[in-house]
Amino acid sequence: MSLLVTKFGGTSVATPERMCRAAQRLVDYQRQGHQVLAVVSAMGSSTDDLLALAHEVNPAPPERELDLLLATGEIVSMSILAMAVESLGCRAQSFTGHQAGIVTTARHNRAQIAHIKTERLERALDEGNIVIVAGFQGFTKTGELTTLGRGGSDTSAVALAAALHADLCEIYSDVDGVYTADPRVVPRAQKLESISYEEMLELSAAGSGALQMRAVEFARNFNVTLYCRSAFSDNPGTFVKEEAVEQALVSGIAYDNSEAKITIRGVPDTKGIAADVFSAIAKAHINVDMIVQNISEHGLTDISFTAPAGDLDRLRPVLDKQVARLGAREYLVDTKITKLSLVGAGLRTNPGIAAKMFKVLSQNDINIEMISTSAIRISVVIDTKKSQTAQQALHTAFDLDAKQVFREATLSKEERAAKAKKGR
Amino acid sequence: MSLLVTKFGGTSVATPERMCRAAQRLVDYQRQGHQVLAVVSAMGSSTDDLLALAHEVNPAPPERELDLLLATGEIVSMSILAMAVESLGCRAQSFTGHQAGIVTTARHNRAQIAHIKTERLERALDEGNIVIVAGFQGFTKTGELTTLGRGGSDTSAVALAAALHADLCEIYSDVDGVYTADPRVVPRAQKLESISYEEMLELSAAGSGALQMRAVEFARNFNVTLYCRSAFSDNPGTFVKEEAVEQALVSGIAYDNSEAKITIRGVPDTKGIAADVFSAIAKAHINVDMIVQNISEHGLTDISFTAPAGDLDRLRPVLDKQVARLGAREYLVDTKITKLSLVGAGLRTNPGIAAKMFKVLSQNDINIEMISTSAIRISVVIDTKKSQTAQQALHTAFDLDAKQVFREATLSKEERAAKAKKGR
Repeated sequence: MSLLVTKFGGTSVATPERMCRAAQRLVDYQRQGHQVLAVVSAMGSSTDDLLALAHEVNPAPPERELDLLLATGEIVSMSILAMAVESLGCRAQSFTGHQAGIVTTARHNRAQIAHIKTERLERALDEGNIVIVAGFQGFTKTGELTTLGRGGSDTSAVALAAALHADLCEIYSDVDGVYTADPRVVPRAQKLESISYEEMLELSAAGSGALQMRAVEFARNFNVTLYCRSAFSDNPGTFVKEEAVEQALVSGIAYDNSEAKITIRGVPDTKGIAADVFSAIAKAHINVDMIVQNISEHGLTDISFTAPAGDLDRLRPVLDKQVARLGAREYLVDTKITKLSLVGAGLRTNPGIAAKMFKVLSQNDINIEMISTSAIRISVVIDTKKSQTAQQALHTAFDLDAKQVFREATLSKEERAAKAKKGR
Repeated sequence: MSLLVTKFGGTSVATPERMCRAAQRLVDYQRQGHQVLAVVSAMGSSTDDLLALAHEVNPAPPERELDLLLATGEIVSMSILAMAVESLGCRAQSFTGHQAGIVTTARHNRAQIAHIKTERLERALDEGNIVIVAGFQGFTKTGELTTLGRGGSDTSAVALAAALHADLCEIYSDVDGVYTADPRVVPRAQKLESISYEEMLELSAAGSGALQMRAVEFARNFNVTLYCRSAFSDNPGTFVKEEAVEQALVSGIAYDNSEAKITIRGVPDTKGIAADVFSAIAKAHINVDMIVQNISEHGLTDISFTAPAGDLDRLRPVLDKQVARLGAREYLVDTKITKLSLVGAGLRTNPGIAAKMFKVLSQNDINIEMISTSAIRISVVIDTKKSQTAQQALHTAFDLDAKQVFREATLSKEERAAKAKKGR
């Protein structure tokens, strides 16, 4: 007997009607002979509603209390889904993070799953229940309730799938798979049938909203096959798993408009200056992404970097202090930038891809402000106004418009069917 | 240092603004030098909202899941109140029933508190926190979440006050005390300064909504002084405690319109008939209150009893079967009845009170359909149409219009002030 772990995102369970549809899927899976465990997010906008309520009584709610408050959203979801399953004539039991044995670190609002005591869930599954677990939450060994941070339900699902040695972890959401680009920006974007963990990680890091990065990391570390699909149709989605059979050169394009570019001008170019600046920023818990330091001229240099635009209010006082301390000239902030990334396992073995990317951008009169790379990713910072042109041009230049490339690069339908039969 | 337990009912914390007002009370108590523990109900109508949501996916929600769902209402309340306290500059920690160590029996939806492991709450109090506990919920020794049934938050508060040896348990709600009668029915009704546990128990059982009966029982059993008062004013409320210094003959009048009177006519008067009928009703989990059996005529008798009108749908099939089995003539149902009760410790020693009550009703042309009594209560069933006349006439006849009677029957203001100084 195979075990399916199925995760429903907030929009998939936003209304009683959608709850019933989700319940029907679970019941169908059980009737097909699977053991079924579902992980749920809070219904629709309920987490935002709870946050708004908190802010009405306290502009800076204490993190411990915020965890207790926000965790109720998933508890409502799980019990309602269990009731919906029972109304279809199957047995269901729902479990809070605590009851499910999800032990986390003690960091409120951003806890990490340490381990899972699966005995209670296994017993419930063995007794024939459809088991439903509240996503996004756990507890510490001192009995404090914790949450995993936004999107943590994906991580809950993957961690449970790993701990229970599930055969597949399905992620139902309002996104119906992983695309070669954002279809709203690049109308010819194609849905991928499958993608490797590594590429998916780079796409998530680069701004693709299909899956949470931490969940993908967990899946890779424990070799859990993910299947990312839509709760609102029966269309095939995208598998995320070990290397696809053949590698496409480039799997997809991701973009991120949420960063700002900061340039500190006229910094005296002495040893350790950059380290000082960035450790001051790190102390304010602000994540810096790309960093470029210009060649020194007359003993002065410029330092540019990107950081989340949402953190600018906290970043400015840090920079004011650093500029004064260093005797730098000034700092400039540009929020109208886009970070554009090309991701593909083929980048590892094809050094020509970066050159081709730069050439395509240049042919389209697009100036590259910053560059960073990893083994399978190239990211550039460009003017947001040029973002759509750039994405469409790159999509065509790297043959992503042609669906055929990806069909070949992944498992065939027959191979998938054969795997499914074996319970994967 | 004294410990105050303070319970806020649902209307007292229905909005963020009321939450802040409740928080201010707690902060004031702590600044006056008390240790403070608050128990909260769910905000406003949120329990009803959750119930409605459950019924949208399942007309008969499983009890285990219903407990998990409904418990979220109090968890939202407790965390929001803790945040409101922190925004006033005091430290607060909130605790779920599980975290608060409230161990209950395994009966879902109607669990009873078995014992409370107070270590964690005591530590939080000793660390200077204002401690806030979710009312209405607990957990079983196998880790299942349970609720105590409607009004269970009062019981949570009293049980915590008992377990922690609190000096006083305040119950804040939209009712500002215990009255000699319902002020909406008897405009001259007077608020009592204090009332004994026993009288309060009888009033609660007879329909007075001021306090939950189980909470009063708990208070009596563990000798916890209750103070029932309004969340919306600083007016004095009513103390519920051991015998008042002097006893009033009659403390108050309560009424209950929620019962129906059922009469089974023409029942063959053979031994054990009544026992058969009432054990069949008990098996359907319907509580029968008053029972009257008429004197037999020609070997036939009539049996009358009262039961909750809300249970009639379940009661009718039981009666249909019993009438057929016994060969009785028929049964009649009257839902337009009121059960009127006179409660007072003085009844124990003044046998004339019942006679006086019957005389007053007769003088007002009110027919008594059924009578039942306890040591300190007389209840009669009358036509609902006559209920207001009856209550007003009895209120006047037993000198309840005169406030003075009760002032003398309870502690004087000075005595109360002296007690308050000692931290009660």
